[in-house]
Amino acid sequence: MEPKFNLWIERDGVVVLSAWRVTLLEAIDAAGSISAAAEQLNIPYRRAWEKVQEIESGLGYRVLDTAVGGPGGGGAHLTPAGREAMARFRRFAEGFDVEVRQRYTAAFSAD
Amino acid sequence: MEPKFNLWIERDGVVVLSAWRVTLLEAIDAAGSISAAAEQLNIPYRRAWEKVQEIESGLGYRVLDTAVGGPGGGGAHLTPAGREAMARFRRFAEGFDVEVRQRYTAAFSAD
Repeated sequence: MEPKFNLWIERDGVVVLSAWRVTLLEAIDAAGSISAAAEQLNIPYRRAWEKVQEIESGLGYRVLDTAVGGPGGGGAHLTPAGREAMARFRRFAEGFDVEVRQRYTAAFSAD
Repeated sequence: MEPKFNLWIERDGVVVLSAWRVTLLEAIDAAGSISAAAEQLNIPYRRAWEKVQEIESGLGYRVLDTAVGGPGGGGAHLTPAGREAMARFRRFAEGFDVEVRQRYTAAFSAD
């Protein structure tokens, strides 16, 4: 047997941030577009796009800066506030795996 | 915004115990039958029954003692091992909500 956990942040009962959403946003930032990240993560573009809308709606600010055209050909990148939100979520979640495992061992080890 | 979490225990990718399953088993124990507990929790009998099977299969022992007939009219009650498993899961999960909230505040408070 093994312990499992999930952590996320909601607003009014709707998910705003989760480890998966952070992965999605960072994939978009690295790939430069929602469509490329969606392909990498093997999810429909529409789903990726909807998640971004939910994140921005929940946080109340833009997390992606989607430039159109220009010398670099445009692209989607994290805004400074978006980058900050990612860092905060990572800080929130950091070390929980160790904590959960320790709790599990303490509670379920033969004694 | 508010932090949320879920904790559970799996075996080979299948859920064995969770807070909800502990609630279910304790409701069965209190009500004296799977059907009465299922009605209380507003879930189909079949679903409750299947969860009990999954729990027992995952743990590898009986958590419910289902007596048939007798002076008390039979009924389903936690076995000593089942009661022990419930206590261990509660110990595993105890105080985790506080921990999650503290980490959330630390990570997301304005600073």
